Amino acid sequence: MGYQEFTIEGRNAVIEAFRSGKTIDKVFILDGCQDGPVMTIKREAKKHDTLMKFVTKERLDQMSETGRHQGVIAYAAAYEYAEVEDILKRAEEAGEAPFLFLLDNIEDPHNLGAIIRTANLAGAHGVIIPKNRAVGLTATVARTSAGALNYTPVAKVTNLAKTIEELKEKGMWFVCADMDGTRMYDLDLKGPIGLVIGNEGSGVGRLVKEKCDMVASIPMKGDIDSLNASVAAGVLAYEIVRQRLA
Amino acid sequence: MGYQEFTIEGRNAVIEAFRSGKTIDKVFILDGCQDGPVMTIKREAKKHDTLMKFVTKERLDQMSETGRHQGVIAYAAAYEYAEVEDILKRAEEAGEAPFLFLLDNIEDPHNLGAIIRTANLAGAHGVIIPKNRAVGLTATVARTSAGALNYTPVAKVTNLAKTIEELKEKGMWFVCADMDGTRMYDLDLKGPIGLVIGNEGSGVGRLVKEKCDMVASIPMKGDIDSLNASVAAGVLAYEIVRQRLA
Repeated sequence: MGYQEFTIEGRNAVIEAFRSGKTIDKVFILDGCQDGPVMTIKREAKKHDTLMKFVTKERLDQMSETGRHQGVIAYAAAYEYAEVEDILKRAEEAGEAPFLFLLDNIEDPHNLGAIIRTANLAGAHGVIIPKNRAVGLTATVARTSAGALNYTPVAKVTNLAKTIEELKEKGMWFVCADMDGTRMYDLDLKGPIGLVIGNEGSGVGRLVKEKCDMVASIPMKGDIDSLNASVAAGVLAYEIVRQRLA
Repeated sequence: MGYQEFTIEGRNAVIEAFRSGKTIDKVFILDGCQDGPVMTIKREAKKHDTLMKFVTKERLDQMSETGRHQGVIAYAAAYEYAEVEDILKRAEEAGEAPFLFLLDNIEDPHNLGAIIRTANLAGAHGVIIPKNRAVGLTATVARTSAGALNYTPVAKVTNLAKTIEELKEKGMWFVCADMDGTRMYDLDLKGPIGLVIGNEGSGVGRLVKEKCDMVASIPMKGDIDSLNASVAAGVLAYEIVRQRLA
């Protein structure tokens, strides 16, 4: 909870941050850069009274945490972690059954960013991550989320298993992904649901898995063990979307 | 076509390379490392008469292209690009309708690796990439493919649109992903099919899109524009898998 200092890198990420109403304190733009997306950023910055600084490529390279600033780096007020309650409230206000992602120790910021992006587009109301070990909301996560971090709330909890228990008492169901589960097409994934995605190497932890009502498997025909964590999250999330639309 | 020099980094990637029968010329292992996966690598190396070198972490860090060697770096004989014909033959030998991935200028090696991984697990017979601009089979691609590169052939072609035309003459159908398409659940994606995935920023090129028989959209509820390319590839590939299983 609370605030963290934050830089946003890359054109789309900065444009999305402006459009979502996020407070941008300062934006650094490659001097002389005049193309469409950069002009949009300048317009947005003017509209929001954001301080603009025109700097050299060397300066941007130096400031960049991701190495992929595309000529634009913004200093945002901050990303704020949401509370789990906020996420449930979003679902209630939309008149929808809650649809949450719970990430059991995702370590790679590219995966976390891609999963938040998927959560946004699949219509999930929020993402819950554990406090320990897992990666938090870094600049790389913000960039790979392609702006989704501005819209989809992320809550940080001390104990994922305990959070699942509390949410089950409120009528939610939880499904985790594991190879030994039931084929995802054969499960009923409609209704208020939490999708639990495990760690890149070790999958879903035992304590968390025990709390889940269902274990879903993605059919696999190949020679290797498992999908990339963010791909698996996408495939399962869209099976939930398909069932909800049907 | 032809061979490239190649390093494979990370435990799983190296173990998979051994198991798939790939020729490993030399393997560098962190001195003193005794855990399970490393012991497996030592056993495999002995079995295959592969030269083992025990080195310091500093040495591995220096050699590493990905920065994530996990204590193991192997020099493999090479990854060889397949021919499109080889891919079709694989389908024929399996007695299955061909299922190909065609990547229209994927630039991020993490995305390419994750897509090859997905292609393997979704039961696709191969992946086709264009020669120009797009990323090739680098060490990062090999690592993020989690070993799939050893099993799933990747062909490189000069002109993707022309390749699609030639494959259409052989009875294949092509579907590309785009937001303005038909909802993927409403398309018939069974039969001999090529799934075309576009560039991370600009999507599927116009010339390639014009050659496609179908344009599929993934339903999107969110506030941002698009899924990560490897996630979109996974979601579409698994809609094809679902229809083929049904």
